Amino acid sequence: MDQTVIDKIKASFARQSFMKTIGAELDHIEKGSVSIRAPLSDHILQQHGFAHAGVAFSMGDSAAGYAALTMMPAEAEVLTTEIKINLLAPASGDTIIAEGRVIKAGSRLTIIGADVFAITGEQEKHIAILQGTMISS
Amino acid sequence: MDQTVIDKIKASFARQSFMKTIGAELDHIEKGSVSIRAPLSDHILQQHGFAHAGVAFSMGDSAAGYAALTMMPAEAEVLTTEIKINLLAPASGDTIIAEGRVIKAGSRLTIIGADVFAITGEQEKHIAILQGTMISS
Amino acid sequence: MDQTVIDKIKASFARQSFMKTIGAELDHIEKGSVSIRAPLSDHILQQHGFAHAGVAFSMGDSAAGYAALTMMPAEAEVLTTEIKINLLAPASGDTIIAEGRVIKAGSRLTIIGADVFAITGEQEKHIAILQGTMISS
Amino acid sequence: MDQTVIDKIKASFARQSFMKTIGAELDHIEKGSVSIRAPLSDHILQQHGFAHAGVAFSMGDSAAGYAALTMMPAEAEVLTTEIKINLLAPASGDTIIAEGRVIKAGSRLTIIGADVFAITGEQEKHIAILQGTMISS
Repeated sequence: MDQTVIDKIKASFARQSFMKTIGAELDHIEKGSVSIRAPLSDHILQQHGFAHAGVAFSMGDSAAGYAALTMMPAEAEVLTTEIKINLLAPASGDTIIAEGRVIKAGSRLTIIGADVFAITGEQEKHIAILQGTMISS
Repeated sequence: MDQTVIDKIKASFARQSFMKTIGAELDHIEKGSVSIRAPLSDHILQQHGFAHAGVAFSMGDSAAGYAALTMMPAEAEVLTTEIKINLLAPASGDTIIAEGRVIKAGSRLTIIGADVFAITGEQEKHIAILQGTMISS
Repeated sequence: MDQTVIDKIKASFARQSFMKTIGAELDHIEKGSVSIRAPLSDHILQQHGFAHAGVAFSMGDSAAGYAALTMMPAEAEVLTTEIKINLLAPASGDTIIAEGRVIKAGSRLTIIGADVFAITGEQEKHIAILQGTMISS
Repeated sequence: MDQTVIDKIKASFARQSFMKTIGAELDHIEKGSVSIRAPLSDHILQQHGFAHAGVAFSMGDSAAGYAALTMMPAEAEVLTTEIKINLLAPASGDTIIAEGRVIKAGSRLTIIGADVFAITGEQEKHIAILQGTMISS
């Protein structure tokens, strides 16, 4: 991975106040794949005490957006066009990890996916899967 | 609208710490339709200074979930199965409003939609549209 | 509606051998909205004797694509980028009608929706709803 | 794989007149994964001469539905609740293959995916990816 792209992603992530609000941090960056991690804290829950579906969505969206960015020219910016999320299991545990990945890189549109996991100790539970489109600008 | 259902939705919303974190409040409840409103604050942004796509998603998801709940028996609870969001315009402005609605109520699965708007003064901009499925439990 | 656009849509539809295979015909064209109609015939069924979900999808997709085309310059062509379909009821009846509509027209990407109905005599049943993206080329 | 399930899938597929209309045949059945194959024929095209998006959708939907069925009790039937498809490349070539797979099997709802390929000689092109939900009945 080009260090310029890594730095660009880190700087971009740092500007995302919503990621900070959730408590999310960049976890891992490689070509075509970026992961984001957050503690499953008390301030991101829905009415049943699980993490809100919007947390899995937001982290998956950001992870996938940066995964798309790793495949683009250095000056490119990326925006989400559309995403579909299927919830697979209640988001309970200690930590949430969202792994974004590029399904098909294109000159304008990049098709992405993301998998979101809830971690409890050594156990990993697949809680959501996303499929969507990023547009470069 | 049955006051029991209104009270149940208000109590449920109050338990959603993520809605409080976003700054969202229940706006309007009627049979088949619930809206949620939040100021577009500095702590819910993405890297370009617009509200994060996850904010529109989260508010649309919650609004649609409660819209589904207005069509169900008093003891029912509702969970999101899947949602698809299309982003229509950058989320800039003073206020975000998400309007959830029921497309088709069913005994187990309810198909829902939501429209999300960014308000600046008197101007309303349609920023996102959601389509998804809620399951009652 | 500009007659040039109507003629262009009719000529394009006539080139779609899959619409002919399904038995579909253009029903109505207006700015931002196009409908397609097909008899619910024996050769388009799934294993339970209802029309295959792919029929509702295909007709909804084509109707929405042409709805998008009504909003574009005369020389534009349109391709489907992505579509999500929720099935609302089994597709039984005499006739299927798909109504495509433009949610948000853009210079490159147009967000579309479609509703699909099964008609029996005078009764209309909402069997599917689609939400997706068309790209002009 | 239990031969009873294989026989049940073959019998179910044979009742799908729409698969026959498309020219599709069952290709491969294993636990959690089913593929369907069709020649890319003249009667399944859209206006630009590629296979209609609805063909990739219909084959992916059926393949995923049968993949879900391989994980269910012998007496179960399956219906599509919702599917999202992203189109990755124009569907040109000699043959279309749709590979359905189970992402998460559940007692009522099964989350599925499907990948659709267009084959020309030895070359395989990824033309579509689907993500959706099947319900057992």
